[in-house]
Amino acid sequence: MTHVVAVVGGGQLARMMTPAATALGLRLRVLVEGPAASAAQVVVDAPVGAPRTASDVLDLVAGVDGPRADVLTFEHEHIPADVLDRVRALGVPVRPSPEALVHAQDKLVMRRRLTELGVPCPRWAPIPDPAALEAFLAEVGGRAVVKTARGGYDGKGVRVVTAADEVADWFTAAAEGGPPLLAEEAVPFTRELAVLLARRPSGQVRAWPVVETVQAGGVCAEVVAPAPDLDPRVAEAALDAATRVAEGVDVTGVLAVEMFEVPGAPGEPSRVLVNELAMRPHNSGHWTLDGAVTSQFEQHLRAVLDLPLGDPSPRARWSVMANVLGSSRERLSDALAEVLDADHGARVHLYGKEIRPGRKLGHVTVTGDDLADVRSRARAAAATLQGFADGAAPDAATPPPV
Amino acid sequence: MTHVVAVVGGGQLARMMTPAATALGLRLRVLVEGPAASAAQVVVDAPVGAPRTASDVLDLVAGVDGPRADVLTFEHEHIPADVLDRVRALGVPVRPSPEALVHAQDKLVMRRRLTELGVPCPRWAPIPDPAALEAFLAEVGGRAVVKTARGGYDGKGVRVVTAADEVADWFTAAAEGGPPLLAEEAVPFTRELAVLLARRPSGQVRAWPVVETVQAGGVCAEVVAPAPDLDPRVAEAALDAATRVAEGVDVTGVLAVEMFEVPGAPGEPSRVLVNELAMRPHNSGHWTLDGAVTSQFEQHLRAVLDLPLGDPSPRARWSVMANVLGSSRERLSDALAEVLDADHGARVHLYGKEIRPGRKLGHVTVTGDDLADVRSRARAAAATLQGFADGAAPDAATPPPV
Repeated sequence: MTHVVAVVGGGQLARMMTPAATALGLRLRVLVEGPAASAAQVVVDAPVGAPRTASDVLDLVAGVDGPRADVLTFEHEHIPADVLDRVRALGVPVRPSPEALVHAQDKLVMRRRLTELGVPCPRWAPIPDPAALEAFLAEVGGRAVVKTARGGYDGKGVRVVTAADEVADWFTAAAEGGPPLLAEEAVPFTRELAVLLARRPSGQVRAWPVVETVQAGGVCAEVVAPAPDLDPRVAEAALDAATRVAEGVDVTGVLAVEMFEVPGAPGEPSRVLVNELAMRPHNSGHWTLDGAVTSQFEQHLRAVLDLPLGDPSPRARWSVMANVLGSSRERLSDALAEVLDADHGARVHLYGKEIRPGRKLGHVTVTGDDLADVRSRARAAAATLQGFADGAAPDAATPPPV
Repeated sequence: MTHVVAVVGGGQLARMMTPAATALGLRLRVLVEGPAASAAQVVVDAPVGAPRTASDVLDLVAGVDGPRADVLTFEHEHIPADVLDRVRALGVPVRPSPEALVHAQDKLVMRRRLTELGVPCPRWAPIPDPAALEAFLAEVGGRAVVKTARGGYDGKGVRVVTAADEVADWFTAAAEGGPPLLAEEAVPFTRELAVLLARRPSGQVRAWPVVETVQAGGVCAEVVAPAPDLDPRVAEAALDAATRVAEGVDVTGVLAVEMFEVPGAPGEPSRVLVNELAMRPHNSGHWTLDGAVTSQFEQHLRAVLDLPLGDPSPRARWSVMANVLGSSRERLSDALAEVLDADHGARVHLYGKEIRPGRKLGHVTVTGDDLADVRSRARAAAATLQGFADGAAPDAATPPPV
């Protein structure tokens, strides 16, 4: 029997599942938002539909022109739980389960559960009203990060505030049925780390090495694998926190845990605090396509099908992934010959998406023994694709905001 | 502009072009023999047609539902030259050109040209009639390899003979318009080597390391990259011969040159003699998907589009690829969990083809530092997929026939 995996979402994450599906002889059926979607360009079985429309998701799983799916999974978290319950009622497993997925959909649910599990988090509080926010601000020194519990991504739904009136619009929206709010201390982190792992329903867990992620304007700009100069005790703490989340929440598939590294007490190693979760292949793991024995996309498919997980070992001492964001350039493919000529070893991945400023359009991974060289080559290749002169992208080198 | 590559042939070679096309944002349009073809399962734009039907090939290039192709290429050599001429008359380049491709289609043309180019070949002769074959047999010691000039593959169209009446049926067929014959000395080779390279229309050439290929029953069973214990002078001679072929014949795209390694004079290094050519991705280069910075499939697409070629360097000290051939097992996917469980680092590639005994259904590549370990793991994984007990495939370990 061919394994059939139904995937909700037709962006670049579903697109990048295709090489692994092809190699392993798995059949993907992807719910796309339209025929020009990133994944629709490269997936044969790609019905058009909306993740919030139950009939579209049920048709995806049932298979109008083909066999019923063996499992339903996602490339984003925007699927209502009641739709997923109806899929399960058909006897088709949903992985990750709605009970796990809610922790990636709702930051209040996530913070409550992580706190119960003893996973290190920034100080946080639910914020039902302006008074609660003023109280929290007073407690954490006058500056806090306010988040909408649902619907945020890539820096959206997140504001750093010093007074409650700076999120007056969000209080109004919450009162009208919008997402509730929470606040977190503005952590004085030295850098951001991420742990990516995969977990099977039967419990097997495999983690890739801890990586450093560099954000610019709330969007991931660069990932270095493994995180340079990472104290082994910190790496162990990060892996332990991520594994505790995966097991405590019963994740199946790939889990990305984004963390802050913060200075420890004098003489002590630094600490990690969990920032965000994602239960799907994640930008912090794109380097695995070229830099690890098993990519996150292959591992996700293996995990949700409850197939044995692959070796997550790195294939090079260093891998650096640089995102390619929309700039003023009109067509990315115009730069293809230029970037391939400039660096014969750069691994270029384009997503087939229309250019909009700031949009993730592709990425480049470079691997090698010399971190400085690998990093500068990855940055230069991404900058070339973005149309920056001299291969120098201003953002990629900017230190993360504190 | 998106680059559109039209490919004739819907087997596993076209199928394995898809990951590179997806990564580089290239659009593949593949002429497949039917909707269940190996490539048809994973290529969105896959019209059904026959490579010998001019209108099917012209429609493929013109693009009934999409843009005109930028280039036409192939995954096999069975396309008549007059069909290719009509494609060129539309202004669409054919790569490799019909003038180059004929050297992979016709072994008589190939032998004549290689001899002109001074490329080392086994002794050979055209065989227009039985008398010519008897004369050749007398010259080479009573034993020769007779080949049909056209139409052979995987050991078909090749016979080792000691008398002309052993190919009486081929003489009859040739007299009735079938392919003409040639004879080659039965070379006392110690092993078989292959050189794979890619060449752009603008002349850039990049070669992967020389590999050892192990045949069983006329079919490739195993490839070791790089060829173990290869004298650097022999490697240089092999690369030189292949480059001379590529330039002399004006190849564009991937060229595979299969060679015999034969003992040299006492105190001299061994010699290489060219056996066969293929102008397309080739079984001897499947290891590059997992073992090289740039795979042969990506390089072929880059070459035929005249894009800068990628780095062909190996990514591991050793890569061993073992073919998975059809056996008595009914469904390969039944063995997927078993093989993934047995070896977490084995890279499994299935082609989505119906099982027939002896048919190439997939391959496994293992990479690492220890050749004996890498080889035994690749063999065991392939054997598991083929359904042999204890992971021991009888054929893979058999030395090549002399």
